[in-house]
Amino acid sequence: MIIDSLIDKIIQMNNPTVMGLDPRYEFIPDEIKNNYKDTNEGICQACLAFNQKLIDSVCDIIPAIKPQAAFYEALGLEGMKILKETCQYAKEKGMFVILDAKRGDIGSTSKAYAKAYLEDEEYAVDFLTVNPYLGSDGILPFVEACEKNQKGLFILVKTSNPSSDELQNLKLENGKTVYETVGNLTEEWGKNFIGKYGYSSICAVVGATHPAELKELRQKMPHTFFLIPGYGAQGGKAEDIALAFDENKMGGIVNASRSLMLAYNSDLWKESYGAKKFAEATRAEAIRMRDEIVNCIQEK
Amino acid sequence: MIIDSLIDKIIQMNNPTVMGLDPRYEFIPDEIKNNYKDTNEGICQACLAFNQKLIDSVCDIIPAIKPQAAFYEALGLEGMKILKETCQYAKEKGMFVILDAKRGDIGSTSKAYAKAYLEDEEYAVDFLTVNPYLGSDGILPFVEACEKNQKGLFILVKTSNPSSDELQNLKLENGKTVYETVGNLTEEWGKNFIGKYGYSSICAVVGATHPAELKELRQKMPHTFFLIPGYGAQGGKAEDIALAFDENKMGGIVNASRSLMLAYNSDLWKESYGAKKFAEATRAEAIRMRDEIVNCIQEK
Repeated sequence: MIIDSLIDKIIQMNNPTVMGLDPRYEFIPDEIKNNYKDTNEGICQACLAFNQKLIDSVCDIIPAIKPQAAFYEALGLEGMKILKETCQYAKEKGMFVILDAKRGDIGSTSKAYAKAYLEDEEYAVDFLTVNPYLGSDGILPFVEACEKNQKGLFILVKTSNPSSDELQNLKLENGKTVYETVGNLTEEWGKNFIGKYGYSSICAVVGATHPAELKELRQKMPHTFFLIPGYGAQGGKAEDIALAFDENKMGGIVNASRSLMLAYNSDLWKESYGAKKFAEATRAEAIRMRDEIVNCIQEK
Repeated sequence: MIIDSLIDKIIQMNNPTVMGLDPRYEFIPDEIKNNYKDTNEGICQACLAFNQKLIDSVCDIIPAIKPQAAFYEALGLEGMKILKETCQYAKEKGMFVILDAKRGDIGSTSKAYAKAYLEDEEYAVDFLTVNPYLGSDGILPFVEACEKNQKGLFILVKTSNPSSDELQNLKLENGKTVYETVGNLTEEWGKNFIGKYGYSSICAVVGATHPAELKELRQKMPHTFFLIPGYGAQGGKAEDIALAFDENKMGGIVNASRSLMLAYNSDLWKESYGAKKFAEATRAEAIRMRDEIVNCIQEK
């Protein structure tokens, strides 16, 4: 069960966090940029080199990466190539790979997406994020691919963005919210994939920016492990995130993208490290983030 | 306004249909398969050749193609390359391109998807399908890209698959359904992009397999043009589809993928054409489909 392997690693490293890797050219320090041409291929190679340096700097302390597909797709075919290379590199360094692609379609089409990302060994993806708007027949082909290939999913339940309320928080006539209904479906979809820690490989995305919902969903989704985006740049706080964890201090993994990738340019680390020591800055921020989150979970 | 150009073309051809192009190897007749090697690259080249022959056979009678991104992504990087080539080829032949990729994410990420598909001229995409589960801040970056680049969107409102009911038909405490709420949001998102026919370039997906919803949404979304999937292989009927059209016989475009791509193997056309004359079979089915749908719209 892949969720067991992920939780094993989180326990071993005492670190329930994941590094988001979005190849945005403006994030890359000159130190790297200067080695590459200002062409699309050069930009992609610079992004890949940046990703690899960041992976090197944290692979012994952070259990997983979360590349965001959109930023690679925005770089065209060359971008998709460095997405593959980033995933492979992280796997070689022993990290788990959560591909954030938010796919979802009618059954026959979801099956094709599952083939693309959960069956093709080239992509080296362990978990995929998927969108539930089409209901069971859009999700089950992904679940079947997970069963066949020992992979996992993170289904969007309550996302971290401000306007997630518009649809996800709508109140139904039965008193439940839309996100709660998706949460119930997720528990149902995942019921045959529960591992030794009581959590299923069919997991959910629940944003760090909504503490009340985090607390509610941890109670209502006892077998569902959470990917928690929104920490750092989006405003989610460690004490809020602690609400997503159970009495055994387990139950989720917290993503940070910008605050790790741009640590070298942050108020906290700019002076000690700066652009030349960007990888050390990311490692310092990774340790700070880990300690802050672990402490909040312990104190809860 | 791109919606005006699309409707102009539909009127000129008297044909409110679109050909779905999903590169599934099992769809390709031996006639083409035999010219290519049985490698991933060979499969991709066979799919591209098949797409091009089908485009050639209908480009003077069908206004648009709808490639489904998932099937190209399932073929890896080479698949993404033939997606670009298919889009470019259709544009050269004067067809509109609706890329069915159902993307959607938080704002900064949706902006990257918009850059990938609505700004990159290589893709030659006119319209993109997007998923509304994240609300306005996941949709507005796409809307802005449409404004900047004269493109359009199709937002998932009520999809054609059987389990679309699970979320989309949930009844809210205000008496509305989820899909109706998304429909209202779509009208709002599109209000500044309404062209000479009264329809906006910010459009909606409404499945042919749900006649009651088609009829309801045509009334409740007077400025929203519909992409109507689900005709043919998925069971949607022409008389149901007619409900999506207004008193001026306008308001939507109907997709068929399998019934056009596999016409050569259908009960109706197998004998007259068969695999050797697959392109003629697709043209015959395209004309039959056009006439059937146009008649139903006229008789409504």
